[in-house]
Amino acid sequence: MDNILNILQKVRDGELEAAAAERELRALYYSDMGFALVDTHRRYRKGFAEAIYCPGKSAEQVTAIARELRRAGGGNILATRASGEIFAAVRDALPDAVYYPISRLILLPGEQRREQGNVLVVSAGTADWPVAEEALITARAMGCRAESLADVGVAGLHRLMAHIDLLQAARVVIVAAGMDGALPSVVAGLVPRPVIAVPTSVGYGANFQGLAPLLAMLNSCATGVTVVNIDNGFGAGYAAALINMNETTEQ
Amino acid sequence: MDNILNILQKVRDGELEAAAAERELRALYYSDMGFALVDTHRRYRKGFAEAIYCPGKSAEQVTAIARELRRAGGGNILATRASGEIFAAVRDALPDAVYYPISRLILLPGEQRREQGNVLVVSAGTADWPVAEEALITARAMGCRAESLADVGVAGLHRLMAHIDLLQAARVVIVAAGMDGALPSVVAGLVPRPVIAVPTSVGYGANFQGLAPLLAMLNSCATGVTVVNIDNGFGAGYAAALINMNETTEQ
Amino acid sequence: MDNILNILQKVRDGELEAAAAERELRALYYSDMGFALVDTHRRYRKGFAEAIYCPGKSAEQVTAIARELRRAGGGNILATRASGEIFAAVRDALPDAVYYPISRLILLPGEQRREQGNVLVVSAGTADWPVAEEALITARAMGCRAESLADVGVAGLHRLMAHIDLLQAARVVIVAAGMDGALPSVVAGLVPRPVIAVPTSVGYGANFQGLAPLLAMLNSCATGVTVVNIDNGFGAGYAAALINMNETTEQ
Amino acid sequence: MDNILNILQKVRDGELEAAAAERELRALYYSDMGFALVDTHRRYRKGFAEAIYCPGKSAEQVTAIARELRRAGGGNILATRASGEIFAAVRDALPDAVYYPISRLILLPGEQRREQGNVLVVSAGTADWPVAEEALITARAMGCRAESLADVGVAGLHRLMAHIDLLQAARVVIVAAGMDGALPSVVAGLVPRPVIAVPTSVGYGANFQGLAPLLAMLNSCATGVTVVNIDNGFGAGYAAALINMNETTEQ
Amino acid sequence: MDNILNILQKVRDGELEAAAAERELRALYYSDMGFALVDTHRRYRKGFAEAIYCPGKSAEQVTAIARELRRAGGGNILATRASGEIFAAVRDALPDAVYYPISRLILLPGEQRREQGNVLVVSAGTADWPVAEEALITARAMGCRAESLADVGVAGLHRLMAHIDLLQAARVVIVAAGMDGALPSVVAGLVPRPVIAVPTSVGYGANFQGLAPLLAMLNSCATGVTVVNIDNGFGAGYAAALINMNETTEQ
Amino acid sequence: MDNILNILQKVRDGELEAAAAERELRALYYSDMGFALVDTHRRYRKGFAEAIYCPGKSAEQVTAIARELRRAGGGNILATRASGEIFAAVRDALPDAVYYPISRLILLPGEQRREQGNVLVVSAGTADWPVAEEALITARAMGCRAESLADVGVAGLHRLMAHIDLLQAARVVIVAAGMDGALPSVVAGLVPRPVIAVPTSVGYGANFQGLAPLLAMLNSCATGVTVVNIDNGFGAGYAAALINMNETTEQ
Amino acid sequence: MDNILNILQKVRDGELEAAAAERELRALYYSDMGFALVDTHRRYRKGFAEAIYCPGKSAEQVTAIARELRRAGGGNILATRASGEIFAAVRDALPDAVYYPISRLILLPGEQRREQGNVLVVSAGTADWPVAEEALITARAMGCRAESLADVGVAGLHRLMAHIDLLQAARVVIVAAGMDGALPSVVAGLVPRPVIAVPTSVGYGANFQGLAPLLAMLNSCATGVTVVNIDNGFGAGYAAALINMNETTEQ
Amino acid sequence: MDNILNILQKVRDGELEAAAAERELRALYYSDMGFALVDTHRRYRKGFAEAIYCPGKSAEQVTAIARELRRAGGGNILATRASGEIFAAVRDALPDAVYYPISRLILLPGEQRREQGNVLVVSAGTADWPVAEEALITARAMGCRAESLADVGVAGLHRLMAHIDLLQAARVVIVAAGMDGALPSVVAGLVPRPVIAVPTSVGYGANFQGLAPLLAMLNSCATGVTVVNIDNGFGAGYAAALINMNETTEQ
Repeated sequence: MDNILNILQKVRDGELEAAAAERELRALYYSDMGFALVDTHRRYRKGFAEAIYCPGKSAEQVTAIARELRRAGGGNILATRASGEIFAAVRDALPDAVYYPISRLILLPGEQRREQGNVLVVSAGTADWPVAEEALITARAMGCRAESLADVGVAGLHRLMAHIDLLQAARVVIVAAGMDGALPSVVAGLVPRPVIAVPTSVGYGANFQGLAPLLAMLNSCATGVTVVNIDNGFGAGYAAALINMNETTEQ
Repeated sequence: MDNILNILQKVRDGELEAAAAERELRALYYSDMGFALVDTHRRYRKGFAEAIYCPGKSAEQVTAIARELRRAGGGNILATRASGEIFAAVRDALPDAVYYPISRLILLPGEQRREQGNVLVVSAGTADWPVAEEALITARAMGCRAESLADVGVAGLHRLMAHIDLLQAARVVIVAAGMDGALPSVVAGLVPRPVIAVPTSVGYGANFQGLAPLLAMLNSCATGVTVVNIDNGFGAGYAAALINMNETTEQ
Repeated sequence: MDNILNILQKVRDGELEAAAAERELRALYYSDMGFALVDTHRRYRKGFAEAIYCPGKSAEQVTAIARELRRAGGGNILATRASGEIFAAVRDALPDAVYYPISRLILLPGEQRREQGNVLVVSAGTADWPVAEEALITARAMGCRAESLADVGVAGLHRLMAHIDLLQAARVVIVAAGMDGALPSVVAGLVPRPVIAVPTSVGYGANFQGLAPLLAMLNSCATGVTVVNIDNGFGAGYAAALINMNETTEQ
Repeated sequence: MDNILNILQKVRDGELEAAAAERELRALYYSDMGFALVDTHRRYRKGFAEAIYCPGKSAEQVTAIARELRRAGGGNILATRASGEIFAAVRDALPDAVYYPISRLILLPGEQRREQGNVLVVSAGTADWPVAEEALITARAMGCRAESLADVGVAGLHRLMAHIDLLQAARVVIVAAGMDGALPSVVAGLVPRPVIAVPTSVGYGANFQGLAPLLAMLNSCATGVTVVNIDNGFGAGYAAALINMNETTEQ
Repeated sequence: MDNILNILQKVRDGELEAAAAERELRALYYSDMGFALVDTHRRYRKGFAEAIYCPGKSAEQVTAIARELRRAGGGNILATRASGEIFAAVRDALPDAVYYPISRLILLPGEQRREQGNVLVVSAGTADWPVAEEALITARAMGCRAESLADVGVAGLHRLMAHIDLLQAARVVIVAAGMDGALPSVVAGLVPRPVIAVPTSVGYGANFQGLAPLLAMLNSCATGVTVVNIDNGFGAGYAAALINMNETTEQ
Repeated sequence: MDNILNILQKVRDGELEAAAAERELRALYYSDMGFALVDTHRRYRKGFAEAIYCPGKSAEQVTAIARELRRAGGGNILATRASGEIFAAVRDALPDAVYYPISRLILLPGEQRREQGNVLVVSAGTADWPVAEEALITARAMGCRAESLADVGVAGLHRLMAHIDLLQAARVVIVAAGMDGALPSVVAGLVPRPVIAVPTSVGYGANFQGLAPLLAMLNSCATGVTVVNIDNGFGAGYAAALINMNETTEQ
Repeated sequence: MDNILNILQKVRDGELEAAAAERELRALYYSDMGFALVDTHRRYRKGFAEAIYCPGKSAEQVTAIARELRRAGGGNILATRASGEIFAAVRDALPDAVYYPISRLILLPGEQRREQGNVLVVSAGTADWPVAEEALITARAMGCRAESLADVGVAGLHRLMAHIDLLQAARVVIVAAGMDGALPSVVAGLVPRPVIAVPTSVGYGANFQGLAPLLAMLNSCATGVTVVNIDNGFGAGYAAALINMNETTEQ
Repeated sequence: MDNILNILQKVRDGELEAAAAERELRALYYSDMGFALVDTHRRYRKGFAEAIYCPGKSAEQVTAIARELRRAGGGNILATRASGEIFAAVRDALPDAVYYPISRLILLPGEQRREQGNVLVVSAGTADWPVAEEALITARAMGCRAESLADVGVAGLHRLMAHIDLLQAARVVIVAAGMDGALPSVVAGLVPRPVIAVPTSVGYGANFQGLAPLLAMLNSCATGVTVVNIDNGFGAGYAAALINMNETTEQ
């Protein structure tokens, strides 16, 4: 049950009481679950359902919100930074849930969409991969064709240069890097496309849990770079998907 | 004289000596000006000429680089954070230079392009306007159709809501805000498009010259937000232009 | 035994020795417990008993202070940031103690007061609830009528707008938010009442354990906002109660 | 011309054309001045007109906004952090404007209100006075009875104690302090009323332009303290006024 | 065996070989233990033996250094921040070792000295006590008469004022406080003696593990305050002892 | 006129009216100057008159406070961080005022005291001298015998070692250093006396206006070091004087 | 099999298929292991094989990379910050692996080189030893003659001075220090050689996990000091080796 | 007059009085100039004379120290961060002084040395040149053969790659970069030599005056990088010279 017309027709046809219809109409905007007001309207407003940020929520709360979002219909649903324990609870309730343990994402599959565009997710080192994977799965869950290129940090530039064709074929490039955060500048110097830089908390000492690459990326000497929060692979994947889908939704 | 073929034809036709031709071929990649190696190849690689960042350069240096970039041909050329004194020197050498004193941009007009897409630049307060204008002029100089909506801070949300149609019509939205940096989150909650947030240094005390809105924007609770450096209107305009042009260059 | 007159009358009536009376009179100001000088005078000076901040105190110390405060008489007594272990010890000694595990508050009920005024506690996300609950219970313990509105973050403004009547009916509004800390500015733009903003440590990366929303709230572009420490729901509830009770105690 | 009814009556009476009436009705919400959307509705929503934050605005812009706010009618209007140059421009246009050079406030007097309540503004040192004065004038401009007590820092507590009656008579206390920011804790330990702490940038070295007292105040060991931005006397005065007026507007 | 003369006499008397004597003479300056060069000369140079900072050292290393310092003779020896596990190992080797579990100090008693002077250790709250105790035991171990006054934070000033005679009798005052760090300023406003302020890491949120009281204390508006590192009770006790003993060692 | 007895005798002798006597008695505690409550009681409580912190005060205010402090009688009076302009105004009113332009101190000479004790002020580099001089003059103004040793930074340790006798003769050592702030640790390793470390803002880049030496000094690996605020020569001199005078005032 | 010529000869001799030869040639540049692109070319470009940074990699990944690097031939191979668990896995696969548990280094021995030059690793305290050892083993693994001098902090300078000959004999000096970070300045004041300073995270409170010594070292008042990241013993050892080998590789 | 033997011979030959000889012998270690103890011994200890850091010194002081250093004999003498005004004073006294206005260095030429080795100074952008030039002139003044390569930032990598032979020929590489500080990592990935990274304060906003590139460089993912203070071209040149000269002084 996913739009206003349906509800009104059911009222007209006597299939739905007025009071029930009112509840359903309100639920198109948000569902009051007591502990949360789930923004069920977001898929109409933003094109994608609300994602569930798991930290600070109990397994029961995550499960209940996931169930409610699915009830509200539509595409894939994501829960981010989910522990294995939370996934176990969600899977009990929604058996088709899929878990990505490295990036700690839960995916509740929705209706299939044709993959479009071309998002490339680049990571500087092996330790940056969990963040890069979060971006990759998010972009795919939002309907993007998306590939990855891992471990091409600037200490051995030839590894990046050997894949210049991948870089040039992308419509948007996500670059996840910790330590000195130098890779996005190098990539953005090579491609005529938007680059989304994701600082990771990989490093130690004066890295300050990702502050060093964050500042470096905000100060990139190359053009076309925008930045998301430290370790925010989800946010990078989401923004990349909006950019990647631009021309489709436009016309 | 702007491509390899031309140069080679002139050599073949005896119009150009080999040594001169070599210099010209190298200059397609960069021009060695003694104090600078101007990246004349950037327009081929990135789609737009190098912009000149004025702080730390003398008026003579800016003028010389500007002249060299124009000689290398192509579209509009921008010099950012230019003082009036620098503009005076540039205009003496290149009389068609245009100056935007509020955003301190110099524009050297190149060949006309048809404006495309739809970039919207939103600013929270009147004091944020110089940064917003820098984004606006940059996006236009890169060939975008671009409009602005000024002074719609969240302390009076109805001013933003009264222009919801402008927001929904945009392909990319740039939001410049100082103080609490709350506006990008509100805008991104309303539109299904990428939002580029530009923190400005407007504020005082615990604003720490734009740190407060920068952190707020990096932590936006709304999806689709990416961030550029404090007061970096140019970077926001540039990234928005790359996003805005996506479908055109794609096909 | 809770005031000077009582003590003096007992002395006059021969019910109390002079030495004992002196100890009791001193104890009206503070009780020397060896490890602590409990400020028993606070209820006269501030209108409410001292609250017990549990971190760094043993279960025995918390219990002893709680017992002493109750002995000193008067209204409700709160212990903040109490672990379950501490609560167990307190309940053994004072069986009517009540525990709020989410906000980790212990309430020792005192004499009933009529609830007054109207405090509204608003939280941006489900993960901010523990802090909001601490504010809510504190305000109620201090005699306020207090309600809450949870999960109305600015990424889906319609959830807030649907409860505009609740906002307008409040005499004081407490707003707890992590991440970008944008909600207090939006709320303060809508209501003609004092807004107490409580940054929470919800977030990651460049959130820096609540620094991002703290700075955003200190820089609010809306008027009437004051701020308390990160995660300080108790402090927000206390200040709101003082504001809420203003007219009552005034006359 | 200050309300909807008036406008509609003029239309009915033929005194106003429909198009002009529409402009006037919109202007009840905001006035589009090109460079600013003045929030003329704020006086209805918040009880007081928008204040003009001068930094980053030209003298012409401040003057135009001031004129527009006065046209929109109602009470006193404030412009904050105004230079003498800006005041000169404002006074040329609005000759009854008053300037407070120490706190850099411009006051445009509106209709008189009876002063109510009792706000006390306390400052720790002589150097904190400009911030304290900004709070004092703001509170008075918003209709409060307000007094001040200057130079009572904790290095000589007897100066504060000698005025304990002033402290106890206040309904709200504003405390402005730089350096160690210790005064609000001491004051809040003595009074049963809300204390608004204003850190000032008075100090040097590890004061970090007011960071030291800001952090101290956010961590106050006394209850009932809330905090505003460094040097934000205006914000403190505004919040104090909302608190001070509570019971009046309530009944 | 503790001085040069003794060693030389033994050589003269044939009790000691030249090579052994050389080793002993060098050991008056430092003992090379392989993993450490124990500064056995410090007691001659500074008046007190080197204290052992335990973190980063194994139980075996602490024990060996303690044994060596005792072998080098003289007064009390302290090991700071010692875990119970380390104490167990030390006590096995040196059975008269004493442990203070709250302040995590180990004391190896040396030759008795007459207690002198008058050090007062003041703490703001019960949670600050471990740091205060470290200062107290250190000062006593260095031969000071030392007393303490706990839980006299500025939120209830009368508790401090009730002990004004203790304050006035002290030759040096140590003040340990977390949260807002306001107590040293108040104490230094009352006494004509040096005040050593010790910020503690007691607090949360914008306390930043003691940064807030550290900055407050460095910016004290009262004179005569000097500051040591956060939680550095040992350093405060040591400096206080040097100050307290001043006149004795002088004459 | 400087004590209670005098005032009372004058009343008894009919030389003073009761009302005038009351004003004079109050003025023993503080003088209400309108813009300041001068703490005239401080000389009784602390042993020295209040010092005048000039920043944020007008030349008229400084002069008036200076005059009032002198009227209240007693020893030397200091005004710190005074500009030449302020000194000119003070000297017009109080012609015996002395100015130290390097350390920006004004000294109003009071009754002579015999110099006592032995304070040594050490500075690391020539650029640290203004701060060292502020400490030196302050200590002397408070009655100390005080000497200085300039430009003995650790990059050339032999300069310090050549003056080991000066170091060993001191009762208190003040060490002013910028850059790496290493000198206090080296000095404290050599002397059995309290060392007061003064970080200076000498340096650049990652010095962060004195933060680097401040942190280094707070973390000194040598014992007996306490620290004052960056550039706070006055505070160091004051604390050193209190320490230096210890045994005198004791007996 | 370690160079291009070998591969080509095998192809010519029919020992290697063209496809296999291509894979081997590519592997001279990097090996694609799926999760990592191992930079096997680094030993040609930098003179030493890539080191494996273990955090964020699984034991399997570390083992696989180690095996691949050894397969690519050449000298010693290091894995840094390896847990005992990772070492166990590596040793199962490569039994000659050596583990240094204090510095958490794994060494895979390669072909022996003659030790050259003279690197001296100095540490300030016993707790700094793990970082110093990491530098020492790294320098030796890269072919340096290297010695160490531990526990010579500036609080007892005579320990350092007693080893002045060691200092003067070194070609490069590495100095690891936590707390105040003063030792590198003292050492650099004594030797005419490059000093590499390594701040360690040894300390507490305002040490901020090594920030204090990092800033001190960056601001060293002595010349010839360069700095690496906090606790980065590996980086210091690596850079020292490059410096130490300078004259050898030069000629 | 530059060594001990000379002085002693003159005494023996009756050319020098004992008292004068003593002064001259002491002056071999340092010269007491009242305001400074010039470390004339440094040239023996470090191989180069003390450099004069001009900020905080008067023109007279700089001149006097320069004169004294020259009197003490030996090689080139540098004064850093000298204003034009200071240079004018120095040149009046020492007419052969040379000024480099861009890097604000004064060079007092000493005896000529043969240039040795090969230092390469690389800068990322034109605005970084002043810092790079300071490094270049310093290295040359210390006897190095030194070249530069300017404006090869990573946004146009081909400019760097076109000069790979310069990079490979260097014995030490200095890399000065502001903004994202990415260039040292890229350079260190390409060369088998020590790389000294110099962060510059070029940038704005979240660059925080060079903090961003400083942190990036400390976290370099490439090996062989050490770092000096922000804008410390002198320090980089000095350290590079020590490294560059290694083999010479070794043999």
